[in-house]
Amino acid sequence: MVGGGGDATIGVLHRMAAQLDGGIELVAGAFSSNAERSRRYGERLGLHSARIYSDYFAMATEEAKLSKGERIDFVSIVTPNHLHFPVAKAFLESGFNVVCEKPMTFDLNEALELRSLVAKSQKVFAVTYSYTGYPMVKQAREMVRRGELGKILKVITEYPQGWRSNPLESTEQDEVWRNDPDRAGATGCLGDIGTHVENLSRYITGLEIDELCADFTKFGAGQRLEDDANLLVHYKGGARGIMHCSKISTGEENHLNIRAYGTDASLEWDQEHPNELIVKYANVSRRTLRRGNDYVSDIARRVTRLIRGQPEGYIEAFANIYTEAVRAIEAEISGQRIPESCDFPRVDDGVAGMAFVDAAVESVKSGGVWTKMKNIQ
Amino acid sequence: MVGGGGDATIGVLHRMAAQLDGGIELVAGAFSSNAERSRRYGERLGLHSARIYSDYFAMATEEAKLSKGERIDFVSIVTPNHLHFPVAKAFLESGFNVVCEKPMTFDLNEALELRSLVAKSQKVFAVTYSYTGYPMVKQAREMVRRGELGKILKVITEYPQGWRSNPLESTEQDEVWRNDPDRAGATGCLGDIGTHVENLSRYITGLEIDELCADFTKFGAGQRLEDDANLLVHYKGGARGIMHCSKISTGEENHLNIRAYGTDASLEWDQEHPNELIVKYANVSRRTLRRGNDYVSDIARRVTRLIRGQPEGYIEAFANIYTEAVRAIEAEISGQRIPESCDFPRVDDGVAGMAFVDAAVESVKSGGVWTKMKNIQ
Amino acid sequence: MVGGGGDATIGVLHRMAAQLDGGIELVAGAFSSNAERSRRYGERLGLHSARIYSDYFAMATEEAKLSKGERIDFVSIVTPNHLHFPVAKAFLESGFNVVCEKPMTFDLNEALELRSLVAKSQKVFAVTYSYTGYPMVKQAREMVRRGELGKILKVITEYPQGWRSNPLESTEQDEVWRNDPDRAGATGCLGDIGTHVENLSRYITGLEIDELCADFTKFGAGQRLEDDANLLVHYKGGARGIMHCSKISTGEENHLNIRAYGTDASLEWDQEHPNELIVKYANVSRRTLRRGNDYVSDIARRVTRLIRGQPEGYIEAFANIYTEAVRAIEAEISGQRIPESCDFPRVDDGVAGMAFVDAAVESVKSGGVWTKMKNIQ
Amino acid sequence: MVGGGGDATIGVLHRMAAQLDGGIELVAGAFSSNAERSRRYGERLGLHSARIYSDYFAMATEEAKLSKGERIDFVSIVTPNHLHFPVAKAFLESGFNVVCEKPMTFDLNEALELRSLVAKSQKVFAVTYSYTGYPMVKQAREMVRRGELGKILKVITEYPQGWRSNPLESTEQDEVWRNDPDRAGATGCLGDIGTHVENLSRYITGLEIDELCADFTKFGAGQRLEDDANLLVHYKGGARGIMHCSKISTGEENHLNIRAYGTDASLEWDQEHPNELIVKYANVSRRTLRRGNDYVSDIARRVTRLIRGQPEGYIEAFANIYTEAVRAIEAEISGQRIPESCDFPRVDDGVAGMAFVDAAVESVKSGGVWTKMKNIQ
Repeated sequence: MVGGGGDATIGVLHRMAAQLDGGIELVAGAFSSNAERSRRYGERLGLHSARIYSDYFAMATEEAKLSKGERIDFVSIVTPNHLHFPVAKAFLESGFNVVCEKPMTFDLNEALELRSLVAKSQKVFAVTYSYTGYPMVKQAREMVRRGELGKILKVITEYPQGWRSNPLESTEQDEVWRNDPDRAGATGCLGDIGTHVENLSRYITGLEIDELCADFTKFGAGQRLEDDANLLVHYKGGARGIMHCSKISTGEENHLNIRAYGTDASLEWDQEHPNELIVKYANVSRRTLRRGNDYVSDIARRVTRLIRGQPEGYIEAFANIYTEAVRAIEAEISGQRIPESCDFPRVDDGVAGMAFVDAAVESVKSGGVWTKMKNIQ
Repeated sequence: MVGGGGDATIGVLHRMAAQLDGGIELVAGAFSSNAERSRRYGERLGLHSARIYSDYFAMATEEAKLSKGERIDFVSIVTPNHLHFPVAKAFLESGFNVVCEKPMTFDLNEALELRSLVAKSQKVFAVTYSYTGYPMVKQAREMVRRGELGKILKVITEYPQGWRSNPLESTEQDEVWRNDPDRAGATGCLGDIGTHVENLSRYITGLEIDELCADFTKFGAGQRLEDDANLLVHYKGGARGIMHCSKISTGEENHLNIRAYGTDASLEWDQEHPNELIVKYANVSRRTLRRGNDYVSDIARRVTRLIRGQPEGYIEAFANIYTEAVRAIEAEISGQRIPESCDFPRVDDGVAGMAFVDAAVESVKSGGVWTKMKNIQ
Repeated sequence: MVGGGGDATIGVLHRMAAQLDGGIELVAGAFSSNAERSRRYGERLGLHSARIYSDYFAMATEEAKLSKGERIDFVSIVTPNHLHFPVAKAFLESGFNVVCEKPMTFDLNEALELRSLVAKSQKVFAVTYSYTGYPMVKQAREMVRRGELGKILKVITEYPQGWRSNPLESTEQDEVWRNDPDRAGATGCLGDIGTHVENLSRYITGLEIDELCADFTKFGAGQRLEDDANLLVHYKGGARGIMHCSKISTGEENHLNIRAYGTDASLEWDQEHPNELIVKYANVSRRTLRRGNDYVSDIARRVTRLIRGQPEGYIEAFANIYTEAVRAIEAEISGQRIPESCDFPRVDDGVAGMAFVDAAVESVKSGGVWTKMKNIQ
Repeated sequence: MVGGGGDATIGVLHRMAAQLDGGIELVAGAFSSNAERSRRYGERLGLHSARIYSDYFAMATEEAKLSKGERIDFVSIVTPNHLHFPVAKAFLESGFNVVCEKPMTFDLNEALELRSLVAKSQKVFAVTYSYTGYPMVKQAREMVRRGELGKILKVITEYPQGWRSNPLESTEQDEVWRNDPDRAGATGCLGDIGTHVENLSRYITGLEIDELCADFTKFGAGQRLEDDANLLVHYKGGARGIMHCSKISTGEENHLNIRAYGTDASLEWDQEHPNELIVKYANVSRRTLRRGNDYVSDIARRVTRLIRGQPEGYIEAFANIYTEAVRAIEAEISGQRIPESCDFPRVDDGVAGMAFVDAAVESVKSGGVWTKMKNIQ
């Protein structure tokens, strides 16, 4: 693991997700840009001192020197955004598979370069768009693929969050780097949570954005980056979209949700009630599909741990990203072809996320005009 | 009543709403542009034949000749949109109070002219933005006025509806005129249901739109007017808004809803569960206010008919528009000042609705650019 | 109308329900046992002074003297419980149809006698078990009848209410007679709201109670009758039941609800969200049926006033009891056979309610033993 | 671990729960009464062959011979019910701490004997009443303790489950032992899920049952033990209760829920939406407390892993039983006093569960009469 030391909740989350099923063990790390802090944190986690590194570069280099059975199988990158690229580069070039937090990189150029590096390395590269790990999100995607919605006409994807205290007064301490353009990138909440909006919507519907019109606002005192972002979207093929994300939606917690309206049926999924998927029809009664039942599709059941009615939560969804990526990593390590069925977000998803951010920033800079997505093929 | 004959559900609805509390009696009408149909329909309703008119102009003229105690106290206009203005004009000029369906007029010019006519006439003029009649909508407005939300930063107002059958194939028969620019005006779903979006959001938050960016789509086969409209909004004072309405949201019924995010608290209200109002806070638990309880404000309780837990519905909300307008009408007729407390949508609300439609149409025509609301003061 | 004067909300409710559709007019009444109060109240309602009576007996006698076209078509009885029987008797014997509040009578003996009187009179007799007027309750009953649930195994019916203030301290003023055994009968909340529990459960499932075991508690200070009643039930044919009702369920409003579990499917309906009916299956997804859609059964649609998504509430449900009873009354008055399809609670339902109360009281008196329902055929 | 091999989902669940936080490692086991199967299963889990035992007795004996640092710190018992006691006895007597599935024993006598054994051994003994591990259950208990509900008057606790197929036809294969009185004990669903009902209600409210009246039914074809159990309850101190559990509630999943009505406020919690706790008041608006917020009590926050809005589920709740028990076990092993704050179900809770089952069986055997709980102090 690179990053994730101290009080960073993201590190704890990755570790819980990775070890839930008992197949992944944390053996090495560079937990902080401060060598002493990294050492202390690694010790707290019970790592062997030789495997606690003072920086990510040392870790990539030293681990590469170990024997195949001994060295790490992959690295998890949970640093602030601006370090994703250099860390990923170092590990890919040292021959390691990579699991990387989102947004994948600092900007679109880095993302495109990283895509080349991944292609060249032939390594597995996963981006932890964690919400696509939920079984009922996979069920939703499967229903779209099977054509159960007909042609999708409209998609609304929302991610409102609220500050814990008055947004006009303060910024939470542990979120400081997210407000710093040098570390977070050109956007605030769009890069942080808006990329989940884009990814979730694309994962479920398969629709690609053609052009968008974005509106950013900095509400919070001292905000250097937007804390509220609203977008109108034209998808390729004619569908319309609304996307918005916000850090100033007082009283909202982590309310990512999506509604996809098709000619035959519509889907509704809410991250805060993730075990259910609501389907609405024109002429028959509404349906609520619930995780763990025999009627859900194989892809959703494969990533289900508990019987129906025993709720699964976010850790399990996150663990599914690891589970699926690790299936690919195991294949890579043993020199086999990566199974088609492995279902985790890849470097292309990371690129799409950065292209989305890039187009939104351009739209805002130009005063809110409709802006085409760059051709990233 | 003018219009509302045949199978038009809107006429039945107005009559149920008006007679619920036993204070309003239907005594005269011109129910159809076809004189024979008007007569038959009036007879079915048990009207005296002398009070069933062949057209609205005859009705305005003849009723005005009756003695004060005998003639109608006000007219309800429930015709297609393009007739609202001429009918309202005829009755105002004949000295009658008017209750008029929304959108108030065919276009903004008519709306402004109607405003002048109302001012000149000194009559009561009500627009049936019916959703503002719900007690918990009034509660929401009251909480905003009292400052319980702090400063409002963001407002999301939605009105998705779905066709009963495949939107790409058919248009419902009784909705034909809504798809005809000569009778409906320059917009389809925006004028029909989007005006409720604008009105509900303004009624609750008190915010005025400064500029907007609109995106219209015609999805349905044979649509001459948009059946999907999405808007980004800048309110005066800095708040941001998202508004959307749609006729192609498969499986949605009449799902008007609003979320208003303030610095201190946020409100959430859903027309399909109208007896509840949800309030979210940053640092204390969520609250659900329910109609009929002692803790709701006086303005909400005044328009409440049933004890808590016995649900009220749309007819009761609609009846409240009549109840409040009739309080004003009674004052007008008896020559008294109209009480300040009368709470019903007036000609200014109708003008605001038409100005909103006008700006949205202009934004769309110019390719989706941000467009200022016209100064309608 | 007999009773329903002063601040009695029940009278207002009956009047709103009766006049909603415009077909029923209040023309005569004895609104209070105090003649002066009755007169004043009748005047306030705009009745002709000749039709405001000092007592119910005078009303029955005098109205009977009027011509067929002039006199009342039926009487609505909304007095305290102990007067239901004598008033109903007086009007039936004077040749009038009757609509009567529940519980139908003071005790089972009166109920059986009333049944004989109704049979002898050949008049229409309706009991306002109002909750069975909801369209989705009718939908539920229809689904059971069609066998969509398979064999029903278990039924849970609840009716919790909470006091507005601390139950151990006070009794609400306007509910005083409900705590008086001489006016309310042998039970408190069981007769008042428990009879709705029994009726709703029987109406939907068609199951008859074989035996029951009851547990009554008086929690409130000064309670002379139980304010909490819990029952285990054995239905004929083997199904099991749980019924409970309560006035001490703090924070509950009017939360009547039912769950019926069948071998093939289960139903769930909640009076506080009456426009929905939830159906659960073993092997397919849950369904939510919503009022106003094409897929609901004819019987539910016949009593539906608004399009889907515009909520109907309790007044509309109550009005449906009147609508259906009045269809029978119109037939009776015109000397025709009462249509089979008329769907309203009748004297037999009132008898069943009183037999239920009777068995529960006997079970409690005997220390909580299982008690057979009396044979009331 | 003893038991939990093969397809037994309970074993997988215990392992996920135990290893979630990274502090517990599975090092030894006797996974099946079949030695060969135990061996194969242990190997699949990656255990050292020397620590895979052919039976629980061998395991207890052999592990006791290992050095303190090497041997197991505690055993998890996840066998069918009839083996809980002998296995627990063997490990307690060999000096090991024990975590045991519920119901704790085969009958009340065994439970009382086990309590003596635990007392004598001075070891930590935990019963995995897993649902009490949810943070919002702990919050509920804390609110009761602080008196926020006033005096509790009524408690309703439900646990409906439905079969996956028609209950009258089949029994699920992997549940066979639960229908066998020699392995499951005197009850079917009451012992299996009804003990959770009793435990959850006691944990939250602190109320002890005084007497109860039970009604058991065998609906399923071939059921030897009841698959539906309904109970009326008198708590010590005057509160009333309803408890029911069922395996025949078609379409229900794992719907454990509780409502506790107090003089000042009422609580409502539902295992299928575990991150919320609803509180209802007489005169103020309803509140929804949500896990992860600053306003929840310390005891709830201590067992919270994720930020608000990222849902936690059943594995996390189950893990909390382990987390708290392990805090006690660590103290025991290091010879320190077990911290007061350790919050996990103990042998007394297991005894209470068996006494509850015992009284219910006696009530049913005597034809449904009210039956006192045995004095188990």
